[in-house]
Amino acid sequence: MSSDKDGAVPGIGAVSSAYSTALAARRRSYGPNTSLSYEQPLMIVRGHGTYLYDDQGVQYLDCVNNVSHVGHGNAEVAASASAQLHTLNTNSRYLHPDLPRYTELLLTTLTATSNNSMSSGNSGNSAGGCSNISDGCDSGGNCIRAGYSGSGTRSSSSNATFPGIQPQSQPQSQRLQQQQKQPPSSSPTISQPSLEVLYLVCSGSEANDLALRIIAAARPGATHIAVMGGAYHGHTSALIQISPYKFWGQGGTGRQPHVHVVPCPDPYRGDNLDGRAAARAALAAAARAGGRLGGFLCESVLSCGGQVVLPTGYLKELYDELRGAGVLLVADEVQCGFGRCGEAFWGFQTQGVAPDIVTMGKPIGNGYPLAALATTRELAAAFSAPGMEYFNTYGGSTAAVAAGLAVLRVIQRDGLQHHAQRVGEYLLSGLRRLRATHEVLGDVRGLGLFLGIEVVRDKASKRHAPATARWLKERMKARRVLLSTDGPYDNVLKIKPPLVFGIREAEVLLGQLSEVLERELTTDVLQQLSQREDEVWGSVYGPRYLQYRENERMLYSGLPPARL
Amino acid sequence: MSSDKDGAVPGIGAVSSAYSTALAARRRSYGPNTSLSYEQPLMIVRGHGTYLYDDQGVQYLDCVNNVSHVGHGNAEVAASASAQLHTLNTNSRYLHPDLPRYTELLLTTLTATSNNSMSSGNSGNSAGGCSNISDGCDSGGNCIRAGYSGSGTRSSSSNATFPGIQPQSQPQSQRLQQQQKQPPSSSPTISQPSLEVLYLVCSGSEANDLALRIIAAARPGATHIAVMGGAYHGHTSALIQISPYKFWGQGGTGRQPHVHVVPCPDPYRGDNLDGRAAARAALAAAARAGGRLGGFLCESVLSCGGQVVLPTGYLKELYDELRGAGVLLVADEVQCGFGRCGEAFWGFQTQGVAPDIVTMGKPIGNGYPLAALATTRELAAAFSAPGMEYFNTYGGSTAAVAAGLAVLRVIQRDGLQHHAQRVGEYLLSGLRRLRATHEVLGDVRGLGLFLGIEVVRDKASKRHAPATARWLKERMKARRVLLSTDGPYDNVLKIKPPLVFGIREAEVLLGQLSEVLERELTTDVLQQLSQREDEVWGSVYGPRYLQYRENERMLYSGLPPARL
Repeated sequence: MSSDKDGAVPGIGAVSSAYSTALAARRRSYGPNTSLSYEQPLMIVRGHGTYLYDDQGVQYLDCVNNVSHVGHGNAEVAASASAQLHTLNTNSRYLHPDLPRYTELLLTTLTATSNNSMSSGNSGNSAGGCSNISDGCDSGGNCIRAGYSGSGTRSSSSNATFPGIQPQSQPQSQRLQQQQKQPPSSSPTISQPSLEVLYLVCSGSEANDLALRIIAAARPGATHIAVMGGAYHGHTSALIQISPYKFWGQGGTGRQPHVHVVPCPDPYRGDNLDGRAAARAALAAAARAGGRLGGFLCESVLSCGGQVVLPTGYLKELYDELRGAGVLLVADEVQCGFGRCGEAFWGFQTQGVAPDIVTMGKPIGNGYPLAALATTRELAAAFSAPGMEYFNTYGGSTAAVAAGLAVLRVIQRDGLQHHAQRVGEYLLSGLRRLRATHEVLGDVRGLGLFLGIEVVRDKASKRHAPATARWLKERMKARRVLLSTDGPYDNVLKIKPPLVFGIREAEVLLGQLSEVLERELTTDVLQQLSQREDEVWGSVYGPRYLQYRENERMLYSGLPPARL
Repeated sequence: MSSDKDGAVPGIGAVSSAYSTALAARRRSYGPNTSLSYEQPLMIVRGHGTYLYDDQGVQYLDCVNNVSHVGHGNAEVAASASAQLHTLNTNSRYLHPDLPRYTELLLTTLTATSNNSMSSGNSGNSAGGCSNISDGCDSGGNCIRAGYSGSGTRSSSSNATFPGIQPQSQPQSQRLQQQQKQPPSSSPTISQPSLEVLYLVCSGSEANDLALRIIAAARPGATHIAVMGGAYHGHTSALIQISPYKFWGQGGTGRQPHVHVVPCPDPYRGDNLDGRAAARAALAAAARAGGRLGGFLCESVLSCGGQVVLPTGYLKELYDELRGAGVLLVADEVQCGFGRCGEAFWGFQTQGVAPDIVTMGKPIGNGYPLAALATTRELAAAFSAPGMEYFNTYGGSTAAVAAGLAVLRVIQRDGLQHHAQRVGEYLLSGLRRLRATHEVLGDVRGLGLFLGIEVVRDKASKRHAPATARWLKERMKARRVLLSTDGPYDNVLKIKPPLVFGIREAEVLLGQLSEVLERELTTDVLQQLSQREDEVWGSVYGPRYLQYRENERMLYSGLPPARL
């Protein structure tokens, strides 16, 4: 497409000449299968807190960018990385004091579940650990306090405490404690893995790809992998193969014989809720295919899978069963980690499980490229034993570590985990109220500031409504509130804002969504959308739905699984 | 290993307590198969230009870190990335003017060979394009000028010109011109691919892994891949499989049936110099294995392969033959690109070839994590056609683009390509003089500031001498000059410093190396090293050498290739 000189772009309308120039140049020179969000893409040139600004100075409430975890342009993280970029930014083949300082600190956050240490110091200082960040930012980007103290629908929660970073004595989430019934010393059958070794890499994809390499080294011969339906684990060749979101999604080439897909729990529809049955089915499917499962990868809260919160106990049952069969268990925390879930620092901790490997990415550096993999001493030794060096040019480089350290510091000091829980609960209750009166809002769910709204044709049928979800996203964008859609049927509105998103922002989101639903989603519009749903369902989502159902049937029936 | 409290670390000796604390913490908490350079690792805390400083303030001349392309802590790049980190650092799903600005600029550097545009404007302004950077930095990190005007062993060269960044009319390397005998309009059989589409990713590994995905999409069914002996293309699961450096190296699990290894040219020993024969052998090997080659990946100057400069015309012959068979040609420029080769901006341009895909990494952001893949419109379309989105969280993010733009700006403004050629030629002549009088310096070679010294037992036998190479590296380090060793037999001293490395630094390197060779490499030491060579050769390098030789024999003999 050539540059449009009169300031109008076909299908987009009047824009600035800088916009049309940039759009034309991007279309000319950048990968055509990279995407721009929204029907009319936004040219965003500035960010502050949980707000983004386009080239005309228009402010948007960002409810989407979970990478900018502690806020767009967070001054502390930016200053920390910047200082290091000026001083030294080199690889991990030299010793640097900050690298082990960071790795030990990050590992500390993981020990909460695996050795229950987060439960120590239950001195009830829930108020003391309360957020000292603002409850958001005003329209000019200036921080304000809303003074809201939370709806209190959940019991007291805590932020992970990091030795060395203003340690605070705080209570543990009661729910988390309830789930952790066995202390590690009395573990019933298999000892709980202790995550003591870290690898720093460059992206969540690199972290998950490394997890596959570790599994291959530690479980030679067990070359099959199980994953959750709808999962996306990254963009490398090996990860596309184990991501149903991709291999069953648009342009996908189907399931490889060594990959087994556990049908994703769907608490809203009451499907696939038995973790133990899922594990047994996956083990059996691998055996029928002539292989053996080496690993199981699963996001602790499913993101691309549709913002699905796993049922209480689900992952514990699944882990127990798979661990008994020698399968290595990988918790993918790339999307949901670092306090976002509110009630725990890591998503897997909300399920009371102890993974063998945890992968981390996106929020870890607030946008500075950084990612990590934590594992046990035993698995790291198995990976290292053959003598092949693991080197990652940017992973563990000095400026990345500086960004990572600053992010942890800000999360802890500003109580962002607790803040996420408090604001998330407020938002969730508001969304539930909206759901009660609007037929298309089938389900609202989530943990902390990782929420989803499942959009359906109607509450009775619970049929997926991707066209309506997209329409809502676009209408919200017109009202300067940014959401995205996702899930295997693209019918889930995702809410995963920077964690500095506050009560005030939640009110804006709720207010605008309410207006769209009440004023814009008229009977006429609903009829038009209904027709569009039929079209997209018939051409794309219907066949995909049948693929998933076929997989599910095969997995549980014990028949040889069809290669879908 | 526990922290050592008295300031001495076993096998390392007296160090600061900060050092021993950091070392102990790193060994406790960081991946055990990540490596620290040198027998006694360095704790580097500051960098400036081409110098690194340890925690005691000791200065080291860095001849190794090619990632810090325009100099450690380069203020312009750091300031550019820092400003963007403060303003906005988000992903490429929003439009941003800098992304297409950068992609179009970067693509401009690639068109030089593929459509010969770099040859235009041959107005002979060779002096006008001369470096305006310093010839290095003094011991305090202050920039100085050495006033050296070059040894002139090569004809006039040029820096790539970037439209929009102070374009200058400059002559093209005569050698490059000689190699480019056919202008694209009269291309003999197959049209030259035009690299017009870019993907920004996060690391060189991600770029090469993406190349594999594009090959798979564009050449369905042609699932076999050919690579160069000794090659390393990255650390993802798929890339380890196509990296002989890894799968035949320590801890490697051997060659996969779909991977075919072209024996690396060894101009020093006169082996494997025929590109056409190599291509035919690879095609035949794939056919015998029941497959078809989809792609061939090759670094334009081999790095981990041992700093090998391909013979003139080699890659052209190989490309011609493989292209005729429909094989996609990937130039891996992760190590050698961005002006380092001196006589051209890209290594592949020194071979007069036109790849279908070019991958870039390391120097591209001066350490800020960034990498890229350039390809043709046709291949991008083939990759995109099925409709699968390619999304890379950090690739093309705003701060990465800012760093990338600043790096291009500095390279161009400071004439670093020309500088690399001038200093490289000076250094190469100095090394050649040393070689003439020292038996262990078997070969010195390279382009620009990408040089290698092949260390051998003696000039007659040319037997690899890894123990001696390592000893030289350690002795140079004791003299505060940092080198590394590499190559399939780890007997090549690598020189690939930040490009601001100047004549003054070249003199330091040459002077110190000369002293080590003349004063420290005594008859006694030589005898001890000789014994050590026997040991390491017998246990590690000998078997590997036989593997390579076996592969070579099989590939060229037409026998079914053994799976080594």
